[in-house]
Amino acid sequence: MSTNVLAELAVTLEQRKSANADSSYVASLHAKGLNKILEKVGEESTETIIAAKDAALSGDKSDLIYETADLWFHTLVMLSHLDLGPDAILDELARRFDLSGLEEKANRN
Amino acid sequence: MSTNVLAELAVTLEQRKSANADSSYVASLHAKGLNKILEKVGEESTETIIAAKDAALSGDKSDLIYETADLWFHTLVMLSHLDLGPDAILDELARRFDLSGLEEKANRN
Amino acid sequence: MSTNVLAELAVTLEQRKSANADSSYVASLHAKGLNKILEKVGEESTETIIAAKDAALSGDKSDLIYETADLWFHTLVMLSHLDLGPDAILDELARRFDLSGLEEKANRN
Amino acid sequence: MSTNVLAELAVTLEQRKSANADSSYVASLHAKGLNKILEKVGEESTETIIAAKDAALSGDKSDLIYETADLWFHTLVMLSHLDLGPDAILDELARRFDLSGLEEKANRN
Repeated sequence: MSTNVLAELAVTLEQRKSANADSSYVASLHAKGLNKILEKVGEESTETIIAAKDAALSGDKSDLIYETADLWFHTLVMLSHLDLGPDAILDELARRFDLSGLEEKANRN
Repeated sequence: MSTNVLAELAVTLEQRKSANADSSYVASLHAKGLNKILEKVGEESTETIIAAKDAALSGDKSDLIYETADLWFHTLVMLSHLDLGPDAILDELARRFDLSGLEEKANRN
Repeated sequence: MSTNVLAELAVTLEQRKSANADSSYVASLHAKGLNKILEKVGEESTETIIAAKDAALSGDKSDLIYETADLWFHTLVMLSHLDLGPDAILDELARRFDLSGLEEKANRN
Repeated sequence: MSTNVLAELAVTLEQRKSANADSSYVASLHAKGLNKILEKVGEESTETIIAAKDAALSGDKSDLIYETADLWFHTLVMLSHLDLGPDAILDELARRFDLSGLEEKANRN
């Protein structure tokens, strides 16, 4: 049973990968193909950078949270399109930083 | 006790925020300031997009995993620089997708 | 009298800056503000990068030409929004590369 | 005879394409390949966006001019790497905006 947001979201994304492109935004992205998904990653990266500049100035972080979530979300769609999931990225981060992630790995099973 | 990679990494990033800039890459990024951190987010976004194009062609996904981890990592440094953590982003994603994240939230406490 | 494409385009962009936002794409960008213009710069940069990868593979350069034109165009709108024109950029490039640009400068007057 | 900055710069870039990679930055970019050149396009796009946000706030436009010149320069290197020049982009812009560019075209010959 999935036990955290990224793992749950990955399950949802896999389900929507085969949904009807007319009724699911995720399915419509997959139907349009990798270039369209990567354009969204680039767009959301830009919007995150602009939102961070604005947050540093105004102190209001709501747009930054929203745009960073959009960026992570579209990277997850990209991973799913190429038959990868967040585990591959989390394992790489854990390896680099010598993190245990032990309970997480237990929870994934 | 931290129970997953992003939460553990967030703890590590907070510790390095106040480390010596000569001995820690993360501390050096904070010392250089927000613009430098955002330049890295933009760079890693570009490298992720290029790696995804190459992965789709060659089938070798190792660079894509590496670059996506770099992208997520530098967004975490950006969040930390603005006194935010991954929880803010995960909560936003959970809210959007109506995910429970219940065990994760329990684990955070 | 303007004598080259960038100079002519700069004149056109200045005229459209004060046009009705309903009838002019450029005017609508200015009305939406700098963030929207910068989002377009980021989008077109991403689309240029993707088009370059595809052009290198297929040999068909039409999309790359189209997307690079879009990128240059939106940087010109950005410059115009901040009361700059292509001359400032061309002068900087001429200075760096020790180019004469003599006839161009003569033509501008 | 070349008569404007972009045309002169294009000539310089073609010469450096075959220069020694140890002595020429442009030659070193070509030697590293398209991905490296595209990474630079993405980097300079990000730096331009950040500089535009700062210029709008401070009124100091020098960084913005510098970064936009860097962005245009690296798109010219990208075009050169794929055996294109600025003319292809200027012709596309002229076509879109119904610009004459007549004297420019005359000057190119």
